[in-house]
Amino acid sequence: MDKLQGIDAAIRRYYSKQVVSEKLIEAILYSVDAGGKRIRPLILLEILEGFGLALTEAHFDVAASLEMIHTGSLIHDDLPAMDDDDYRRGRLTNHKKFDEATAILAGDSLFLDPFALIAGTALSDKIKVELIRRLSISSGTFGMVGGQMLDMQGEGQRLNLEQLSAVHAHKTGCLLAFPFEAAGIIAQQSTEVLQQLTLAGNLVGHAFQVRDDILDVTASFDELGKTPMKDLLAEKSTYPGLLGLEKSYEILDNSLNQAQAIFATLEQQVSFKPKKIQEMIERLRLDA
Amino acid sequence: MDKLQGIDAAIRRYYSKQVVSEKLIEAILYSVDAGGKRIRPLILLEILEGFGLALTEAHFDVAASLEMIHTGSLIHDDLPAMDDDDYRRGRLTNHKKFDEATAILAGDSLFLDPFALIAGTALSDKIKVELIRRLSISSGTFGMVGGQMLDMQGEGQRLNLEQLSAVHAHKTGCLLAFPFEAAGIIAQQSTEVLQQLTLAGNLVGHAFQVRDDILDVTASFDELGKTPMKDLLAEKSTYPGLLGLEKSYEILDNSLNQAQAIFATLEQQVSFKPKKIQEMIERLRLDA
Repeated sequence: MDKLQGIDAAIRRYYSKQVVSEKLIEAILYSVDAGGKRIRPLILLEILEGFGLALTEAHFDVAASLEMIHTGSLIHDDLPAMDDDDYRRGRLTNHKKFDEATAILAGDSLFLDPFALIAGTALSDKIKVELIRRLSISSGTFGMVGGQMLDMQGEGQRLNLEQLSAVHAHKTGCLLAFPFEAAGIIAQQSTEVLQQLTLAGNLVGHAFQVRDDILDVTASFDELGKTPMKDLLAEKSTYPGLLGLEKSYEILDNSLNQAQAIFATLEQQVSFKPKKIQEMIERLRLDA
Repeated sequence: MDKLQGIDAAIRRYYSKQVVSEKLIEAILYSVDAGGKRIRPLILLEILEGFGLALTEAHFDVAASLEMIHTGSLIHDDLPAMDDDDYRRGRLTNHKKFDEATAILAGDSLFLDPFALIAGTALSDKIKVELIRRLSISSGTFGMVGGQMLDMQGEGQRLNLEQLSAVHAHKTGCLLAFPFEAAGIIAQQSTEVLQQLTLAGNLVGHAFQVRDDILDVTASFDELGKTPMKDLLAEKSTYPGLLGLEKSYEILDNSLNQAQAIFATLEQQVSFKPKKIQEMIERLRLDA
């Protein structure tokens, strides 16, 4: 099965179980279908295959649960009280397409549902508990939501590099590191390998945010699918704003290099074929 | 340990693990401390004791996780785009005390965190997976959030009794039924007993909403801790509005009687002492 189709199918499977409010499911699927690149779930699936696992419905369910939380966070980030964005990936944001209350509830659903999705899969209870524990920590107060709060608190202030890194390590980094760690948990790897995977995940997460900051300055609406220069207008601290574009490109490259080096080393140590994940990481580079 | 203190201690224990944003944790604990009666977690703990279990930290953690999701839902329900309430339990609502963005994120945290809390407790993996699965379903698209959406969709319309029941069965009923079911799961009861517990939970959930509707009409601001007649002003369908006050009191009593009858029967069938939970149910009655 094509991976992108498999992820979408897993999300749709969950939402076709029963209907309480059709409109709620419509709003949820509107944002799920908004053309996201599914980078987080794809990382999970590529690493699982790298460890030699044949992908099953359970793996797609875990991948889907991760995309659901990511999508929920985008819906809430776009709300008027938050970033107040009218467009996301070239389409109207959820609260512009529907209304604010619906967007709040659609996001809430996408935060609450993934845990039943994982709990219901055909993996061992031990693996499911560990996946759920890590996903919850990566996304809640000590992860994504905590980082989002730090980001808001920093608006209008000039953050130093350490503060900016702390924002991003939580806001974006934790949920981007999760699929690396989750793949190791599902493939039942040793603690040492899990640590290496988490480290690679943190590096890719860091790269991703630097990349996003660069694109905010260099890309047009068409390329970005949303309003560019938003960070600049919101007086948000960014890597290009703090360090300049040239240095930002350098950090992006360095982070990706280090992540790739970890996978190259893992290939020597355990039964792991890193070709696909290395290609995915390679595609995150930008031409200066 | 006093049960109320134990529940609060469990929530505080989770939020003292580390700090990403102090302000986020402050906003979360503001609403956790807002004087809720902790009825859901208390139901869980009373039934567990009824089954003869000595309460442990793990039980308080599960109780806390339930209160966290309930609190998150109150924070989001009060938002300007939803019910637009300035007061809750006699204190400023979260978005009035802090701001809208903080209230959105505090609610998000309270939806995402409880699953790590349960996953980290000293219960068997099998029990944890089943608790997480049921809590997620009871609170997300097919439970509380779905019901909240139905409730919003019904505003300004005259719902019939069946539609009104469907709203409440999901909006309030699912999360009120959860502690009944969860206690049975933790006490490792048979499927038949779990079904009886769920049924009792649904009845108490139904009673709770009818009670809330009655209080909205009959209680003052001081008694209610929030603006009365909100439902009436929002042109929401309610039990008193649909059936009159007298019939509403009757439904409340009948639901509570049926729930108490289930516990009386359970006492005959399995090793279960229902005295405390029967008293809790009794306290939900209102003088007509």
